[in-house]
Amino acid sequence: MEKIRLIEVKEEILGDNRELADGLRKRLKGSGVFMMNLMSSPGSGKTSLVLRTIRALKNELKIGVIEGDIDSVVDAETVAKEGVPAVQLRTGGFCHLDATMIGKALDAMDLAALDFIIIENVGNLVCPAEFDTGAHLNAMILSVPEGDDKPLKYPLMFSLCNVLLINKIDYLKYASDFNTDLVKERVRALNPGITIIEVSCKTGEGIDRWADWLKNRIREGRK
Amino acid sequence: MEKIRLIEVKEEILGDNRELADGLRKRLKGSGVFMMNLMSSPGSGKTSLVLRTIRALKNELKIGVIEGDIDSVVDAETVAKEGVPAVQLRTGGFCHLDATMIGKALDAMDLAALDFIIIENVGNLVCPAEFDTGAHLNAMILSVPEGDDKPLKYPLMFSLCNVLLINKIDYLKYASDFNTDLVKERVRALNPGITIIEVSCKTGEGIDRWADWLKNRIREGRK
Repeated sequence: MEKIRLIEVKEEILGDNRELADGLRKRLKGSGVFMMNLMSSPGSGKTSLVLRTIRALKNELKIGVIEGDIDSVVDAETVAKEGVPAVQLRTGGFCHLDATMIGKALDAMDLAALDFIIIENVGNLVCPAEFDTGAHLNAMILSVPEGDDKPLKYPLMFSLCNVLLINKIDYLKYASDFNTDLVKERVRALNPGITIIEVSCKTGEGIDRWADWLKNRIREGRK
Repeated sequence: MEKIRLIEVKEEILGDNRELADGLRKRLKGSGVFMMNLMSSPGSGKTSLVLRTIRALKNELKIGVIEGDIDSVVDAETVAKEGVPAVQLRTGGFCHLDATMIGKALDAMDLAALDFIIIENVGNLVCPAEFDTGAHLNAMILSVPEGDDKPLKYPLMFSLCNVLLINKIDYLKYASDFNTDLVKERVRALNPGITIIEVSCKTGEGIDRWADWLKNRIREGRK
């Protein structure tokens, strides 16, 4: 019997992507730009959080947005109305953004004119967790209506994020399957160093705390 | 409102892949190697056809196989038992092979010692159709139990293949939803130049015709 050569495609592809992502991080650092990758399920409130974040920070920081979306430009249009430059990556069915795609988006942006870039990743708790985008900070949203079992079902995403936003806390009074303490316990079992911030993009509750925390991270990151 | 930059990720990724694939085709041509990419749904008989093809051609041609599989090495082991060198690309969940992956497989093969390479792609009628592997010939299998409506449901795959093998014709006597003439008509409406060959990998019917057709294509391609 002939010998079989086994190539672990996924590891190689992810390794190549990680190298590219490291290059992007250095390039951004060289331009004094801090980049955040925002991930969540569809409908958790990514675009609402992006808008809240822009409004809270735009007087102090020059912000740009990279929108990942399977097949529309709706989110980029919403963002552009805030007066912020936006690049729309239309993935045409791809389920995540990777470093190659983010590199193309950065090529289309004027980095010298920016301090902070937000990536709104494709709505998906699985694939985006595997592909390093080159961001300096990984943030995710879990919204109350999604239920408190999500850290058990999507452990990789919860493990790699630096910060978890629990959104739609205005729903807590109606939600029978969301115990905030239990979520925190489950998330910290996977990722003891994670920061957890409770917000409602609808009412604005918690947004100040989020904006303060983020400003500190951006300031530290741009040094 | 700020201007939005729109980047069509899919087109750019597919374009980059096509360039890489063209490079692979040239590299193979330079080494006198002809490569075929074999695609189908799961269970249509790709591995059986690979084995039948190896047995029919191995006295005349030095054959190598690249096996794409999501998470096993079973197919590569089956092929290696035929005395043919095999590279297993374990995709770890990816749904297709692309030119980057095939390039890694070719790096692991001794091209100077080969005349013909068969790629057994991941069992999937959708994504593999979009990614050029660098092969000189695209072949697909439709098996009788899958039904005669498949050309209507997966037109891209049927449009781009040079040859369609209708496999499991030994089932024709039991199949109520497979009209061979209707399949041919539907396929030729999409792809007038396609060659259609009926085979049964189980009984061996039609394999001689397939092997003769393929030998001619390989001979022409290696000139």
